[in-house]
Amino acid sequence: MQIDTIKIRQFCEKLFTAYGFSADEGKIISDILLRADLYGIESHGVHRLVRYHEEITCNQVDVKAKPQIVHETPVSAVMDANKAMGQLVGAQAMNLAIEKARNAGCGMITVRNSNHYGIAGYYTEMAAAQDMLGVSMTNTEAICVPTFGSQAMTGTNAIALAMPAEPFVFSYDASTTVVPRGKIEVYKKNDQPLPDLWALDINGKPCTDASEVITNIINKAGGGIAPLGGMGVLHGGHKGYGLSVIVDLFSAVISNGLTSNYVNRKPDHTGICHFFMAIDYGIFGDKVLIKAGMSKFLQELRDSKKAEGHSRIYTHGEKEAELMAQRENTQIPVSEKTLEEMKVIAEKLGVEFLL
Amino acid sequence: MQIDTIKIRQFCEKLFTAYGFSADEGKIISDILLRADLYGIESHGVHRLVRYHEEITCNQVDVKAKPQIVHETPVSAVMDANKAMGQLVGAQAMNLAIEKARNAGCGMITVRNSNHYGIAGYYTEMAAAQDMLGVSMTNTEAICVPTFGSQAMTGTNAIALAMPAEPFVFSYDASTTVVPRGKIEVYKKNDQPLPDLWALDINGKPCTDASEVITNIINKAGGGIAPLGGMGVLHGGHKGYGLSVIVDLFSAVISNGLTSNYVNRKPDHTGICHFFMAIDYGIFGDKVLIKAGMSKFLQELRDSKKAEGHSRIYTHGEKEAELMAQRENTQIPVSEKTLEEMKVIAEKLGVEFLL
Repeated sequence: MQIDTIKIRQFCEKLFTAYGFSADEGKIISDILLRADLYGIESHGVHRLVRYHEEITCNQVDVKAKPQIVHETPVSAVMDANKAMGQLVGAQAMNLAIEKARNAGCGMITVRNSNHYGIAGYYTEMAAAQDMLGVSMTNTEAICVPTFGSQAMTGTNAIALAMPAEPFVFSYDASTTVVPRGKIEVYKKNDQPLPDLWALDINGKPCTDASEVITNIINKAGGGIAPLGGMGVLHGGHKGYGLSVIVDLFSAVISNGLTSNYVNRKPDHTGICHFFMAIDYGIFGDKVLIKAGMSKFLQELRDSKKAEGHSRIYTHGEKEAELMAQRENTQIPVSEKTLEEMKVIAEKLGVEFLL
Repeated sequence: MQIDTIKIRQFCEKLFTAYGFSADEGKIISDILLRADLYGIESHGVHRLVRYHEEITCNQVDVKAKPQIVHETPVSAVMDANKAMGQLVGAQAMNLAIEKARNAGCGMITVRNSNHYGIAGYYTEMAAAQDMLGVSMTNTEAICVPTFGSQAMTGTNAIALAMPAEPFVFSYDASTTVVPRGKIEVYKKNDQPLPDLWALDINGKPCTDASEVITNIINKAGGGIAPLGGMGVLHGGHKGYGLSVIVDLFSAVISNGLTSNYVNRKPDHTGICHFFMAIDYGIFGDKVLIKAGMSKFLQELRDSKKAEGHSRIYTHGEKEAELMAQRENTQIPVSEKTLEEMKVIAEKLGVEFLL
């Protein structure tokens, strides 16, 4: 179903104010949610409204919470999010990182006791929009099995980085697992066998049965998804495993929050942690020159020789920028199931549903 | 062959002073070189002396060069290495990053016109030894083919990060390619077919012939190694590709140096670029508490449930620390071929060869 972008935005904003968020807060949350749909990352868009509804309803998300700075220096801060909505936490923390970068050259904010914050790339692009280099990371509930292990210990643990460039920002945003959970769910739905590098059974052996993997994840029975590089060490799975540990270091360890293996263990507290960094890249010289250098390098990548059967080499953020240009003032595709879920939520909250 | 660690160190130090380096410089270069052998990373140890010899002889490395700070703020610096020996550049740049971190909380140094600097992990562990979090990256000659490409555009582009912890430092040090070039060379030597995710032929198709891949790399004929995650996007190869671009961003783009696709194009100038960062993690609160949190998390990873057939889960830096404890005051294994090469170099320089 193709839904009018403006209408769906208005609906989301109304929905969030109905939960008790202010109008401004509703706008921020909706913008982050819809950015995912505009970018074609459906898993993080309105598809997730039903899950946010549950999180708010069971008080994992505290609508009235105010994040608090508990430690601060000119280049850093530690924020206790106090269970606030992840998107509000993320926007506030990245704004603080940007402010610090403006004054001190760089700013690093580590955040504990937050919630799912949507696409990591939204926050890094906030920095890029201020002509800064942005970094963000987030842990999640454990789903990734360390090399030689059989038990999920780290999350999908995304790393995002955005750097200004022309004609569009370089925007990297990727989980440190070989695939996100959503990909396994698609294979389950299509009753397809998984590639054998992707997932592990409860004994830590390759598991190609998507249904078994998802069931084990839900029941915390063992097994899970392999880190980037796949199972074992042959294709560098230990590298992806290390990157996932690094995400927990920056988000959970230095904030004194919960590492992935403790996230989402209580009904009313996820404990998700994030990290944000902004660098005013002018601390390395002429910004015009540096940005031009980035643009040139990215263009060289796109212009380099293609593999047989491929007509384009993409740089990170390119596909998303193209898709957003198409969808921003037109329509967003939403599945019937998601629309139905949105309708149910609207009814519960007494919000008019006109999509 | 097992060679006495003290003797081989003395030999290396003498060798480097024979090139014209000062005694102190010889000690630094030798320490970095031997650390690789102590850690079991033979590709970056004395095995590489023959290559450094060539680089010094053809003036890619300028023995008398002094790296120069060309731009500086309290949290950053840009260094023009002026073709100095990579190890000396690296040690100097990380020391500067540590000094800045001591004063301002963090320090970021980007370096252009350097040379191969050995193992990236040496520099990050310099920061960890000062109870700081260290990051380092380096580009190299292009060998990695972007997703959907057929031409190498980025280097092996290592990322290293070290964070203090007990009983040993967390020390991540990995290329952003699925495997380093050395691994392909081992398969060639053993006449084994490559796993089909690793390498690409000149048309960007999977290539399992190690000999063909190495020949194409040497002749710059096209093809090369896949990014971490492998060829294509199925296993997340676009993530490894993005990480390799990020390494070039921090090392080459912001230093206004040469990106990987321009490195090593002249007989007397490699143009390799690096990045160094030190963070005094006390900017995020009580260092004792944070370090204890890291140690606890790493221990939980090691203690987590093992896969069938595996008795240990390692954290990054663990294997290397164990091996170094064994080898430091005893012996290092060196291949006969490498010993022979060292003997030839010693004769050319008039250095006594007593190994």
